[in-house]
Amino acid sequence: MIIDCHGHYTTEPKALHEFRARQIAAVKERSALPSRESLKISDDEIREGIESAQLKLQRERGTDLTIFSPRASGMGHHIGDEPVSLEWSQICNDLIHRVVRLYPNNFIGVCQLPQSIGVEPKNSIAELERCVTQLGFIGCNLNPDPSGGYFNAPPLTDKWWYPLYEKMVELDVPAMIHVSGCCNPAQHTTGSYYLNADTMAFMQLILSDLFKDFPGLKLIIPHGGGAVPFHWGRFRGIALNNKRPELNEIMSNNIYFDTCVYHQPGIDLLTKVVPIDNILFASEMVGAVKGIDPKSGHYFDDTKRYIDHAPGLSAADKQKIFEGNTRRVFSRLRIPQSVAQASA
Amino acid sequence: MIIDCHGHYTTEPKALHEFRARQIAAVKERSALPSRESLKISDDEIREGIESAQLKLQRERGTDLTIFSPRASGMGHHIGDEPVSLEWSQICNDLIHRVVRLYPNNFIGVCQLPQSIGVEPKNSIAELERCVTQLGFIGCNLNPDPSGGYFNAPPLTDKWWYPLYEKMVELDVPAMIHVSGCCNPAQHTTGSYYLNADTMAFMQLILSDLFKDFPGLKLIIPHGGGAVPFHWGRFRGIALNNKRPELNEIMSNNIYFDTCVYHQPGIDLLTKVVPIDNILFASEMVGAVKGIDPKSGHYFDDTKRYIDHAPGLSAADKQKIFEGNTRRVFSRLRIPQSVAQASA
Repeated sequence: MIIDCHGHYTTEPKALHEFRARQIAAVKERSALPSRESLKISDDEIREGIESAQLKLQRERGTDLTIFSPRASGMGHHIGDEPVSLEWSQICNDLIHRVVRLYPNNFIGVCQLPQSIGVEPKNSIAELERCVTQLGFIGCNLNPDPSGGYFNAPPLTDKWWYPLYEKMVELDVPAMIHVSGCCNPAQHTTGSYYLNADTMAFMQLILSDLFKDFPGLKLIIPHGGGAVPFHWGRFRGIALNNKRPELNEIMSNNIYFDTCVYHQPGIDLLTKVVPIDNILFASEMVGAVKGIDPKSGHYFDDTKRYIDHAPGLSAADKQKIFEGNTRRVFSRLRIPQSVAQASA
Repeated sequence: MIIDCHGHYTTEPKALHEFRARQIAAVKERSALPSRESLKISDDEIREGIESAQLKLQRERGTDLTIFSPRASGMGHHIGDEPVSLEWSQICNDLIHRVVRLYPNNFIGVCQLPQSIGVEPKNSIAELERCVTQLGFIGCNLNPDPSGGYFNAPPLTDKWWYPLYEKMVELDVPAMIHVSGCCNPAQHTTGSYYLNADTMAFMQLILSDLFKDFPGLKLIIPHGGGAVPFHWGRFRGIALNNKRPELNEIMSNNIYFDTCVYHQPGIDLLTKVVPIDNILFASEMVGAVKGIDPKSGHYFDDTKRYIDHAPGLSAADKQKIFEGNTRRVFSRLRIPQSVAQASA
């Protein structure tokens, strides 16, 4: 079976965007925030968005299950204060829960956290716990830069983050390290900012003792690990020059890359240099790059095709990337019986 | 012949570091700045550093000429104010000029610019002009983030930069887009910050009309273009979705990547996806990653070996990468006759 570990709810009903616009307007102009009760979304509206996009593409591409979280660029941790971020996060997470309840065979939830500029990550613990224990979510998206583009939060290896990591380990859930929309005009959200955050995070981790302190901590760096596989020699060399072990050993059971790399040569490189055990299948659909590649005639984000065609991957390797590794990392994932039977 | 377009003076005499330390201390503690005359460096001290490192490695690796600029991480545009940056830049550039005069067959100069946080780039024009017209330099390093890690300068496509571009075009010199040392604890200078700046710069450029305004502007994005070749499909898709042409067409005679990618699979990818006409040979030695790869037994930064072994590169392709493209981009470059004869 094929599990996509990185899907965002990017086909939200219009009412959600309208609510968010009112919330942002209230923050900027210090007027009354809209009440949560004012937001009305019907199951049919949810179905309409999901069935015409994510579900349709799952069927077309032959993937079974998507680990599903709120739109990453919409988390907006730099907007408003902590209560605003909390309310917005709860609304978005509850909506993911509704999607999962409507399509239990196709989606399983991952939450966004109510982070906010300068606010300690431990304040996100309650929402993480709610999502995992009450909504059945199996992971979270952790924003390493709540400023939205200025990279001024403490590194992920700083003790600032430790209470959240403790809870993650206790709940046995991984985090995908994923920034949100960029408010810095020097960086483009999906073009440079996402990738820069990925590269930054990896570099922070490899020179640290974080995984000595948290041997059970599991972090997924999306978008194929940013610039890392392309510069594998640079990172290896810097690690070795700093008396650290080989990257394979550092990554081990703690750091994973996904396959959101939108061309064949990129996936070929990823699967050649990064240990197969540390690669999780993902497409990020419907997300960063929509549309069909005029050269290949296929969707840019149809990453399953690239894995299918990557030279040197055995059937066992592909099984690990498509399913095995993801089940190991998302250890709370229980495959719905109907899906397991259908793909057996 | 083989021209390395990206070498830094990283073996400076001790006296230079001592001078800089006093300069920084004076800025931080508001005491008197050291006088430029107090800095004494003999030709023998310069020879000692160069001959034991850059020159030795040139010979060992079989490269002929290095386009040589001050240590990138030492530019420190975030330190002090504009007069401090100007004095430091002039000192560093003059030292490059001395290296070039001592070894005219082996090095040719590229300058650092006296940029400073919040200061308009047009203020760097005088030093650029001095270096090109008086010292015989053939290009400059342009820092897209004088803040040293917070990416808060206007994008390279902003009119803020235009007067400097006008002068570059008038002088017919390219710029390598290169940040300096990182003072942001979230990013590692050579591990993530350099690459992130590269990726950021490319993304700024491809959605802009900068090269319509400056058809003759030539920008080199170092370190293999940051994350770009690995995510070629992502950038292609974003460009096409924004009604821009194919990346090849955008890069054309304006954007170039160097070959500072420190492993064979990375160079293989670079030379496979990026147009050969847009790749310039470089090693960044002695720089970001010192030492020998224990797996290959060769220096990480011996990038000539990777080019030599890249599959699918014809002799003509290699000639372009090693020499032809660089002579086209650095159009003020005149090969010393003795070098031309020796390599003929």
